[in-house]
Amino acid sequence: MKVEIIAIGDELTSGRILNTTSGFAARNLFEAGYEIYAMHTIGDSPGLIGEALKRAIGRVDAVIVTGGLGYTDDDLTNEAVSKALNRPTIPNLEILSSIREHLDEITNAPVGELEKLALLPKGAQVLSPHSLMAGYQLIHEDRPIFFLPGVPNQMKQLLVEHVLPTLSTWHKDHHLSTYQTIFRIFNLPEIEVNRRISSLDFPPDVHIGYYPVFPEVHLSLIVRNKKTNNAKKLFRSSSRAICTVLGDAIYGQDRDSMERVVGYLLKKNNFQLAVAESCTGGLICKKLTDAPGSSSYFLGGVVSYANSLKSGYLDIPTKLLNEYGAVSREVAEAMAVGVKKTSCSDIGLAVTGIAGPEGGTEQKPVGTIYIGIATAEENWVTKFRFSGDRWQIRNLTAQSGLDLIRKYLLQQDSGKQQTHF
Amino acid sequence: MKVEIIAIGDELTSGRILNTTSGFAARNLFEAGYEIYAMHTIGDSPGLIGEALKRAIGRVDAVIVTGGLGYTDDDLTNEAVSKALNRPTIPNLEILSSIREHLDEITNAPVGELEKLALLPKGAQVLSPHSLMAGYQLIHEDRPIFFLPGVPNQMKQLLVEHVLPTLSTWHKDHHLSTYQTIFRIFNLPEIEVNRRISSLDFPPDVHIGYYPVFPEVHLSLIVRNKKTNNAKKLFRSSSRAICTVLGDAIYGQDRDSMERVVGYLLKKNNFQLAVAESCTGGLICKKLTDAPGSSSYFLGGVVSYANSLKSGYLDIPTKLLNEYGAVSREVAEAMAVGVKKTSCSDIGLAVTGIAGPEGGTEQKPVGTIYIGIATAEENWVTKFRFSGDRWQIRNLTAQSGLDLIRKYLLQQDSGKQQTHF
Repeated sequence: MKVEIIAIGDELTSGRILNTTSGFAARNLFEAGYEIYAMHTIGDSPGLIGEALKRAIGRVDAVIVTGGLGYTDDDLTNEAVSKALNRPTIPNLEILSSIREHLDEITNAPVGELEKLALLPKGAQVLSPHSLMAGYQLIHEDRPIFFLPGVPNQMKQLLVEHVLPTLSTWHKDHHLSTYQTIFRIFNLPEIEVNRRISSLDFPPDVHIGYYPVFPEVHLSLIVRNKKTNNAKKLFRSSSRAICTVLGDAIYGQDRDSMERVVGYLLKKNNFQLAVAESCTGGLICKKLTDAPGSSSYFLGGVVSYANSLKSGYLDIPTKLLNEYGAVSREVAEAMAVGVKKTSCSDIGLAVTGIAGPEGGTEQKPVGTIYIGIATAEENWVTKFRFSGDRWQIRNLTAQSGLDLIRKYLLQQDSGKQQTHF
Repeated sequence: MKVEIIAIGDELTSGRILNTTSGFAARNLFEAGYEIYAMHTIGDSPGLIGEALKRAIGRVDAVIVTGGLGYTDDDLTNEAVSKALNRPTIPNLEILSSIREHLDEITNAPVGELEKLALLPKGAQVLSPHSLMAGYQLIHEDRPIFFLPGVPNQMKQLLVEHVLPTLSTWHKDHHLSTYQTIFRIFNLPEIEVNRRISSLDFPPDVHIGYYPVFPEVHLSLIVRNKKTNNAKKLFRSSSRAICTVLGDAIYGQDRDSMERVVGYLLKKNNFQLAVAESCTGGLICKKLTDAPGSSSYFLGGVVSYANSLKSGYLDIPTKLLNEYGAVSREVAEAMAVGVKKTSCSDIGLAVTGIAGPEGGTEQKPVGTIYIGIATAEENWVTKFRFSGDRWQIRNLTAQSGLDLIRKYLLQQDSGKQQTHF
């Protein structure tokens, strides 16, 4: 079943806003087994909107249109749809009453303008009539067409709660069983992933794709076969083969993130982590706390951006800072030990380095990074030399720090298993 | 001059990767005065690539195609272009020699496979022959067509360094002078922005657009007139009118960010900031240090995610934590005072709250946030009740904290001006 996605808004074609909703829709539709024929982004122009919509209706099985449903003057989707599909707009009573009901929640809104929200093309079925979210569905030429708001959260909610369930009952494409996953790889270049995977001899039902997603490489495995059992078996054996050749460079699958995998391993080992950050300036702490529930394994830490804070919070002797400089093996180790001790954590992670664009020297160019780890057994420091801009260097540093913790925790795990054995 | 942008890659249509390159291209082209007719995202399918390319060539003045130029099996752009435009692929000698030259930089690359990179459609002019970046230009039916790599950094570099300069000499659309800007607004709902702007009576040459960009609202002002002087005058008077009705809810313009504006004001006042974060877990520090040169006004701080770190690093008495709870006016103030004192900064900013999804109570539901500020003159705490998911609450909190600092610094500024007066 083929789907086409049309995003509408001058803010998207002018690049003022990044279109994230189409990608979200594509991922969810793809994972539910639909083929995305194409995605378009067009401005708030009724002519273009109508043209794109009619062309899509002529060639795919379902269309999703996002944006342009608001009440301001540049919201023109309903008008365009009405004209293109020859469906006059009619005031929707459910929406009108919902607007009046919620009026006090909308500060200073002139009722007359808001009522534009209720003028929908004939045949429109409102998706969530009791909320304040725009969004409706039309059946046109036997195809479902969904109109969703451009506001990302509303669009995502309506897609998951209304569009996907409606589509799944609309038409079932059962002739092929599909199994798929994404392997998430860090610290192995795409070309090396490619080389190792090329050594495996996959049958034609197995489809492999590579996608560099800075700072990671993602490998997609899709297996399609008429027989569910064959597809499942082949998917399992292919997954195993991929894991064998890529080893622990695979840190997770599908929607895993490095920080969640690290969180899972910390929790499993009953360890608490604390972090001291210099050049990453809070990025590692921010990533770790993006995950709900992170307080069970992450205590917090110190953003010792200035040297005075390295001495003040982490007990690093000024002498050490003066002798070796803040960007040094010695200071990275002292920061890791210091944050572990002052926070009473089980593991201390510390990074210090030069993220640029200024601050590099001949001996310590931009991209020079030291990552220190302090544990109950030992402390060690790993030196990196990253290339890229400030954003890239900071992200590579944060991801590498978390990856070092991950590998330490994996060793702890396998050590324990050996002991049990 | 109309431009169409085509992004190619299964990773984009499946939603595995967010298409950021098209938005970047659109913004830069728009700012250089081009009209973006449409943007398309299609999979690695030669048929679709050819169809989209031919349709674009038939209706716009220039086309930009990104992605699918690599050497792996799923990179099919050159093959598709060759077929669609009837231009056989020919090995490009410059690229071949560049590949051989850089071979040792590309780990484990089989030369045979890499040579695919050099097979370009007839007439292709390589954009950056001495680098390892794919990318070329074709003149077809009197229109420039640019093929750029999908890798965001390479694409961005080639766009700025080659595509924009080439386009600017290609064709000049001089009949209208255009002046434009984006006003960035925080802490004022879109509907209220709309209401205030509606009170202004702009002439037809003035175009206003609104764009909610969580957690901000962006307002675009575009003025077009045949006479440069008229356009300039009208742009200035319109800008002034907008600033008058929106006041200090406008925190910046165009590519400003809240953290950079705060950084600029800190530097101007010669103040150093330190931050203590609980629920935002490092996000504020991370935002502040995203800006190069932030070390001149930002010392760092403490991510006191666990209560033990609030006592340990920030000298907050356990009694206070026990009596009022970590999420309280009293603790927010103590954190701000504590981080200011322990870091020896001029200003201390502290946030504590419940970002969710767990941890809310009836008295302190998810979204309850206290933001404390400590300065030389006084300390104060502002309470917020945000709604949204964890990501939204954390971002609203970080942005609000920075905005409070911004408003304090603006007062300092105007206070100084009054004194001078």
